[in-house]
Amino acid sequence: MSLDLALLRAAHDRIRPYIKRTPVLTSEALDLARGARLSFKCENLQAAGAFKSRGACNAVFSLTDAEAARGVVTHSSGNHAAALARAARLRGIAAHIVMPQGSPQSKVRNVESFGGLITFCEPGLNAREATCAKLAAETGAVLVHPFDDLRVIAGQGTATIELLEEVPDLDFVLCPVGGGGLLSGTALAAKLLKPGIKVIGVEPAVADDVAQSFRAGKRISIPTPATIADGLRTNCTGKINLPIIRQYVDDIVTVSEEAIVTAMRELWEQLHLVIEPSAAVPYAALIENKFTFAGRKAGLILTGGNVDLESLPWPKK
Amino acid sequence: MSLDLALLRAAHDRIRPYIKRTPVLTSEALDLARGARLSFKCENLQAAGAFKSRGACNAVFSLTDAEAARGVVTHSSGNHAAALARAARLRGIAAHIVMPQGSPQSKVRNVESFGGLITFCEPGLNAREATCAKLAAETGAVLVHPFDDLRVIAGQGTATIELLEEVPDLDFVLCPVGGGGLLSGTALAAKLLKPGIKVIGVEPAVADDVAQSFRAGKRISIPTPATIADGLRTNCTGKINLPIIRQYVDDIVTVSEEAIVTAMRELWEQLHLVIEPSAAVPYAALIENKFTFAGRKAGLILTGGNVDLESLPWPKK
Repeated sequence: MSLDLALLRAAHDRIRPYIKRTPVLTSEALDLARGARLSFKCENLQAAGAFKSRGACNAVFSLTDAEAARGVVTHSSGNHAAALARAARLRGIAAHIVMPQGSPQSKVRNVESFGGLITFCEPGLNAREATCAKLAAETGAVLVHPFDDLRVIAGQGTATIELLEEVPDLDFVLCPVGGGGLLSGTALAAKLLKPGIKVIGVEPAVADDVAQSFRAGKRISIPTPATIADGLRTNCTGKINLPIIRQYVDDIVTVSEEAIVTAMRELWEQLHLVIEPSAAVPYAALIENKFTFAGRKAGLILTGGNVDLESLPWPKK
Repeated sequence: MSLDLALLRAAHDRIRPYIKRTPVLTSEALDLARGARLSFKCENLQAAGAFKSRGACNAVFSLTDAEAARGVVTHSSGNHAAALARAARLRGIAAHIVMPQGSPQSKVRNVESFGGLITFCEPGLNAREATCAKLAAETGAVLVHPFDDLRVIAGQGTATIELLEEVPDLDFVLCPVGGGGLLSGTALAAKLLKPGIKVIGVEPAVADDVAQSFRAGKRISIPTPATIADGLRTNCTGKINLPIIRQYVDDIVTVSEEAIVTAMRELWEQLHLVIEPSAAVPYAALIENKFTFAGRKAGLILTGGNVDLESLPWPKK
């Protein structure tokens, strides 16, 4: 597969029956507060509550019938797990999901609600990958990696295709960075559609593995980071992702944990959306003035809305 | 003004530049849970966070230049106050807002953010109306009543025009009932566009003044009710509203406070939207099986999203 617009268009056509066209929202109050013109692509309103449904559907519906018959397998404690289980159910095949023991009950329930077959393992990437490999060997299921997979990357890029269809004159696109799947897809879509646009990744400062890798030009691994943005706790970007990010992304900036919480609350209050901490990370970069785009038009991808309503990061009166 | 479709179409044309076309969302999980096909009209995503912007804009932009020059006045501690202040600012005129002492700080700040001129008064309807009348006499400002006003009613009905444009084959439309402004507008729009549709108002059982009035055929007043749905704490419907409701509404059902909280939480979790308790009231009627529409298509108006994030009605872990 070559990295061209046809790849992204094919992904979009493939997944369209299985995903939602999410709305793009604006806010007079937030524009005033930040001195810019902001458009929010609401992937928290996506099927299964996150953009991950795009990549998962593209991967699952790219399989041949013979491949699909063996099912799919992944390791994830988060939104990719639920999205893959949902995509597999839509295709009528099995989804084997490796989750670390101690995963939040809400995430476990979410996977179960889509019929995912869960295998629990010890926490830590080694145990996850080993359990995943064992399951794949036993069942013949096809691995759908959460981010280091071109089918997944192409699927994630479709959010930016839709965003630019609705707001063609954006100067910037911003998205959060975990493993770099969304950032790779976003950058590909944005730059192939509109070469002059700037693509900015935003990462928690305590989870800056991709920012480090971007500057060093090689994949740098960090200990599993303790950021509140639970969707961004990956510790190393993918083999496929880094070259795409190096070629197409203009910059990766980092934000503090405090700014993420402030951003999350400001977006809940002003946009009236339930978004998870990870989704607030790009807006946190505006709060911390990580770059200037006074008066310019920026699109921000609100990545997901799966959050435990009893554990919100602000006090209760 | 006659109560026909032209009145509603004119309102829609008048306010279109000043309001948002809010999205209509669906949820596989909620359809499965309720055994129906539900469409949610997201007025929590409306300008100023509530459908009230529709009626307020229609009233303010219906004024002649001579009337407008004198400003507008209303009494409200909630979303109508902010919506009227916003509409007045868009027209460049003064908005005098009478608010009871002890109104939530978030609501006061909301009105102030749109440049509303606040006069505080003693709590209670008599003091509010007296202060409002005094202000109107002093300033010549035009009263824009929160619900007992045909311009406001016509404006509120435009949400249902948009809902039926997107989902023409609805069997039911459900909305919450406070003073009856939204219900009047919703019923007018729904029945004039699609005579066979059923229109159901849903009211908190402890605030059932409009349900009582609907059955009795006369306006029945109750003591100010203590429902969690703070937008529905009116104690008597309007003179204009009741005849419209009696003619066009099929039924008004009531729901418990417990069901309202359960509904609010289920909608936050599944739709990923911040909605205020009042907006959860129609869905509460489904939870309590207040009528059967198994397999049918229902549209629910999510009225607003202005809520104090530190005072959510569920525990914090």
